[in-house]
Amino acid sequence: MARSTGRRTVVTVDVSASSGSRSRQDHLAAEEPLEIRVRKKPLAVTMRTPGHDIDLAMGFLLSEGVIGEATDVTTAQLCAGTDTPNTYNVVDIVLDPSVPPPVTDPSRNFYTTSSCGVCGKASIDAVKTKSRFDVTGFPLEVAAKTLVELPTKLRAAQRTFDRTGGLHAAGLFTTDGELLVLREDVGRHNAVDKVLGWALREGRLPLSDNVLLVSGRASFELVQKAWMAGLPLLAAVSAPSTLAVELAEESGMTLVGFLREPKMNIYAGAQRVTV
Amino acid sequence: MARSTGRRTVVTVDVSASSGSRSRQDHLAAEEPLEIRVRKKPLAVTMRTPGHDIDLAMGFLLSEGVIGEATDVTTAQLCAGTDTPNTYNVVDIVLDPSVPPPVTDPSRNFYTTSSCGVCGKASIDAVKTKSRFDVTGFPLEVAAKTLVELPTKLRAAQRTFDRTGGLHAAGLFTTDGELLVLREDVGRHNAVDKVLGWALREGRLPLSDNVLLVSGRASFELVQKAWMAGLPLLAAVSAPSTLAVELAEESGMTLVGFLREPKMNIYAGAQRVTV
Repeated sequence: MARSTGRRTVVTVDVSASSGSRSRQDHLAAEEPLEIRVRKKPLAVTMRTPGHDIDLAMGFLLSEGVIGEATDVTTAQLCAGTDTPNTYNVVDIVLDPSVPPPVTDPSRNFYTTSSCGVCGKASIDAVKTKSRFDVTGFPLEVAAKTLVELPTKLRAAQRTFDRTGGLHAAGLFTTDGELLVLREDVGRHNAVDKVLGWALREGRLPLSDNVLLVSGRASFELVQKAWMAGLPLLAAVSAPSTLAVELAEESGMTLVGFLREPKMNIYAGAQRVTV
Repeated sequence: MARSTGRRTVVTVDVSASSGSRSRQDHLAAEEPLEIRVRKKPLAVTMRTPGHDIDLAMGFLLSEGVIGEATDVTTAQLCAGTDTPNTYNVVDIVLDPSVPPPVTDPSRNFYTTSSCGVCGKASIDAVKTKSRFDVTGFPLEVAAKTLVELPTKLRAAQRTFDRTGGLHAAGLFTTDGELLVLREDVGRHNAVDKVLGWALREGRLPLSDNVLLVSGRASFELVQKAWMAGLPLLAAVSAPSTLAVELAEESGMTLVGFLREPKMNIYAGAQRVTV
């Protein structure tokens, strides 16, 4: 089975010390390609940290609007049929016959419009078309003092980061600040997909009573993923982008950024955070 | 013209203060989709910070092995023909007739092999096939004490980050530590593509006498981009992944991580760093 870290020899240099350089063993975050197939047909390849690969594939399909609940998937397995180590870098999904297969034609990429141009507004409209949940209707409330403690809890639970210093994290919390699940990955979107795939398999969608925290920045794509899972609140340790804020506003989601005890910035949906 | 930042109203909460919450204006890093077309045919859409879009498209095509020098491109322009604002989110490239057009069939994605599986080794072999430069033969040397000063220089030159706190940066330096060009973007790969596109347009490839510094982590994809531009040294402020190190070793490149004054870790090609 693929591992989440790897050992390598590294030369450490400290220009302030007279010792010069020294060689030692170090742990690195593992990165390997994962191919996601739907009924043996390649759909996407993502560079990810091995582990929770089926959750990653399920979360990816959820984010893309292909599936909406666990029963949309008949089987999901690491590709069988050969004995090569590569087998662990392929997840094959079989959809329920009632579920339309994903569109794979690149010219039908959902960002692209038929006219000369793409824009943020068109991207937002495309996500809106695909979302199954009206997040606006989710009355979640969370105390500001609970929110500011979440990054510390996330960081304390990050085991691989401690060894490698090289992973993004995503954590799903209750409004009481209890960590339900944490996932780490070299790719920020992968960490979120792994969390959402877990939630989908557990039958927890929509995540109307939960908070998702990401260790880095909040991009358009991360807000999209949160919306597709029915999350009313996305919090990020770092900055959001303009389009992330616009998508959060459009969806009725609460978006928190720069969440660093004792402060935070609320960019959309401030009514859900009680002070 | 699209802007690199946007102003939004934000609610700031400080749970340690009695003041509760207050509303103010804040600058955010802009994020908008950019569609890259080759002879009017859509090739890719990336979520990027507007600005230096033609460099971004050129750098992307270089990284993918489609082009190798400025003369491979006949024209590169922001899509003309309409008056909509979206026009600025499309770059249309016309390749020289001697250049084979890019492959757009997703089933021919270069990571994918014909057998049941993909793996790091196959990904490395695929990049190797496409690279035009033998980086092993580039005898660049740089002093460790010059290297450790680069992150401070990069940070000092980051104007948009100062306002938004939300951007990745990539900077191209000489071995004397002089900053040649800096680019910022919400996407780490975009920041690098903008630098490489600039260098290609300037006729500077291969970048055999330069050092590329990125503000975040070193992934497989960033090492790939550096190799395609003929860069013998890639340095990152944060951690590299296992596959980034393997690709650097395979290419004969020097890979530096955790570059934080006064220290650094050298993961490959330590002979180019003089202590």
